Amino acid sequence: MTDTLVLHEYAASGNCYKVRLTAALVGIPIDRREYDILKGETRTPEFLENVNPNGRIPVLQAGDRFIPESNAACYYLADGSRLIPSERFDHADMLRWMFWEQYNHEPNIATLRFWMHEVGVEKLTEAQRLQLSAKREGGNAALKLMDDHLSGREWFVGDGISLADICLFAYTHVAGDAEFRLHAYPHVSGWIDRVQKQPNFLPMDG
Amino acid sequence: MTDTLVLHEYAASGNCYKVRLTAALVGIPIDRREYDILKGETRTPEFLENVNPNGRIPVLQAGDRFIPESNAACYYLADGSRLIPSERFDHADMLRWMFWEQYNHEPNIATLRFWMHEVGVEKLTEAQRLQLSAKREGGNAALKLMDDHLSGREWFVGDGISLADICLFAYTHVAGDAEFRLHAYPHVSGWIDRVQKQPNFLPMDG
Repeated sequence: MTDTLVLHEYAASGNCYKVRLTAALVGIPIDRREYDILKGETRTPEFLENVNPNGRIPVLQAGDRFIPESNAACYYLADGSRLIPSERFDHADMLRWMFWEQYNHEPNIATLRFWMHEVGVEKLTEAQRLQLSAKREGGNAALKLMDDHLSGREWFVGDGISLADICLFAYTHVAGDAEFRLHAYPHVSGWIDRVQKQPNFLPMDG
Repeated sequence: MTDTLVLHEYAASGNCYKVRLTAALVGIPIDRREYDILKGETRTPEFLENVNPNGRIPVLQAGDRFIPESNAACYYLADGSRLIPSERFDHADMLRWMFWEQYNHEPNIATLRFWMHEVGVEKLTEAQRLQLSAKREGGNAALKLMDDHLSGREWFVGDGISLADICLFAYTHVAGDAEFRLHAYPHVSGWIDRVQKQPNFLPMDG
């Protein structure tokens, strides 16, 4: 890859951490540019025009092109590496877990973490407060599904670590910030240890 | 592909239609098995054990293996076809739109359609009713972002139709069921026509 890579991010976001962790594991250097989402820095006319019309981070910039959506940015970085299985079913199965993460895991666990850990429960709207119990239930269902899947296997897909693990790891390992009890999910806890022992592993605040 | 392919589905779901449309466009025959999600047929112990522990459709069965998540099933079917760009950036950009669809488009437009068209607004919970305006706003923001992107281009990625178009088409072309005004988005309307004119196009009720 010859293009300069810049990650437009908010470092506390697990979605941004996924991209940094993928880059670390495959050994690709990236520059970082921080935006404070709590101050609306990704909703400015300049950001919407030049970086992402969706007003969200992360966005991976490769030369003069931009890739929004964390899991797509991870794929771009890891394309051709051991993190992406080449066998047709395993490849689709990896994507299955990545789509599942964005639909069933992130909107529950990451959103609860953001509301409780960064916004503050007392500042939530009534509509948000009324979603707390459904998101708690959805988050625990996601963790249980992961725990059941990891029973008797080390990684989400096939025999080795893949982007499915990276993308699920990001918000799972900090689910305690949203008061999820990770020790109740022993297979998930063991898998978190395995991810953290990978060569070139990068912690979230690293 | 030598495995028998079975789509476990609820035909009225746009997520299931995506998979049927992809199969039609690439010319792969699939068998179909219908479940009534309103009667809980995807939450039975047998379904959870044998088809998808997440209790959702669609699930594409390939021989004795199962691929949940509509966009992953589409990828499996289209792998190696013209619907998946091979160039690294375009490939990641296609995935970007597919992840965006599941995170920003489906939870607004498809959920509103399901609530209004299948469940009935009068049967919604208070927590759901309080989300109606945010989902309306999010759905219109998604349609506007698509409309802006399609201004001056025919397809979402590169110069030809890809899975990004298929996955976005499914719920967009029936957004009127949820009272979104598609004629307010002329570039989206033109793109819907182009998708419908593809060789081997399959309508949602086809």
